[in-house]
Amino acid sequence: MSKLYQHSTIGALMSGLFEGSLTISDLLNQGDLGIGTLDSLDGELIILDGKAYQIKGDGTVHRVDGNEKTPNAAVTDFKAEHSLKVDKKVSSDRLKDKLTRSFTSENTFQAIKVTGSFKNISCRSVMKQNKPYPKLVEVTRSQSEFKRPFVSGSLVGFFTPDIFGTIAVPQFHLHFMSDEKDFGGHVLDFEMIHGKAEWQTIGTLEQHFPVTNDRFMKSDIDYSSLNEDIKEAE
Amino acid sequence: MSKLYQHSTIGALMSGLFEGSLTISDLLNQGDLGIGTLDSLDGELIILDGKAYQIKGDGTVHRVDGNEKTPNAAVTDFKAEHSLKVDKKVSSDRLKDKLTRSFTSENTFQAIKVTGSFKNISCRSVMKQNKPYPKLVEVTRSQSEFKRPFVSGSLVGFFTPDIFGTIAVPQFHLHFMSDEKDFGGHVLDFEMIHGKAEWQTIGTLEQHFPVTNDRFMKSDIDYSSLNEDIKEAE
Repeated sequence: MSKLYQHSTIGALMSGLFEGSLTISDLLNQGDLGIGTLDSLDGELIILDGKAYQIKGDGTVHRVDGNEKTPNAAVTDFKAEHSLKVDKKVSSDRLKDKLTRSFTSENTFQAIKVTGSFKNISCRSVMKQNKPYPKLVEVTRSQSEFKRPFVSGSLVGFFTPDIFGTIAVPQFHLHFMSDEKDFGGHVLDFEMIHGKAEWQTIGTLEQHFPVTNDRFMKSDIDYSSLNEDIKEAE
Repeated sequence: MSKLYQHSTIGALMSGLFEGSLTISDLLNQGDLGIGTLDSLDGELIILDGKAYQIKGDGTVHRVDGNEKTPNAAVTDFKAEHSLKVDKKVSSDRLKDKLTRSFTSENTFQAIKVTGSFKNISCRSVMKQNKPYPKLVEVTRSQSEFKRPFVSGSLVGFFTPDIFGTIAVPQFHLHFMSDEKDFGGHVLDFEMIHGKAEWQTIGTLEQHFPVTNDRFMKSDIDYSSLNEDIKEAE
């Protein structure tokens, strides 16, 4: 049965719990495709074909050492179960609509990998933060945005059912990595020209809590504004 | 690492997804302590010391056959990590307060077992429903309530962090079973006279989706009123 492994939650991250609590090695043991961030919110994390890449706040792309830590990430062992060919230009909204209508269900998670060529893709990343950490929504208000008129690469991420929308970003949450490994981030918008979308229905969410991380265990996670903050930040 | 296994979600149950999709045998393979309901919402389910009991809508208690199915249940292999002695009368609110303050964290799940003698305990159960199933909140509006002036037994259940409050009942969700196995249900209120509370911090939530159940996969889970409905029903 396909399993999605998540370490900590978007709710905890929104509250400023940016301290890394799982090594990238341990994360890669749980899956070969996924998304997340790094210790101190040091950029966007993308796991593609079992390799971890970091897109820093200045837009530069780096391979991530196994000893580095993540405060929040989700991975799966990706095996494409379904696919959809893209052979004429579609907007990101239109592609997401097509995918949603093709999913076996919107009541469980779906792992997604979209490979091909893209036009006018815009991505964002975030700057490394210092303690005491602010709330994520305050960081994203000054996020860096990067655009490419044309690029080949992969969108990677998950579809999350609405009722899980306080523990993971609801609906589509996609990160991008170019084939050249020189451009990417948290995806804001794109047009897709050509390629294929593949996905996998998730049967089990393994939600792991950073129980040995004092900050996680002792912090007050602000639930009241969580839905709005996620909407603004993600 | 302690694991909480949940089949389906309270969100799905609230939407009327009452069709059993996991056998009690399979559930018991995942843990020896827990709570839930049965196919067609046929009463309250409690798993105590590896045995499954059903409290029907008329208040009668039955052992549950392994072939019966549940639409939503949560279990853990319970190993008491912490405990708290009760040697003078406390209200349910006061006991929950004491527990909450004793927990290592409110940001992860806690499995709870409270054994001893209780005064003025009131429990509820629900009547078996027929298809097309109504929403759970409509069923609980006509729930049966049962009271005992004095009874010995066990409270069993979980503490759920608020941000997981659409997939499991937020904060405390406890079911009761008397030592005589003749009284119990979903706990509404009690006073505790004497006994002990034990709990265990959960490191991993294994959230299982009924992906082979067509009704689950195809249904629209109404997210808009979910928090309010859970508050009213639970």
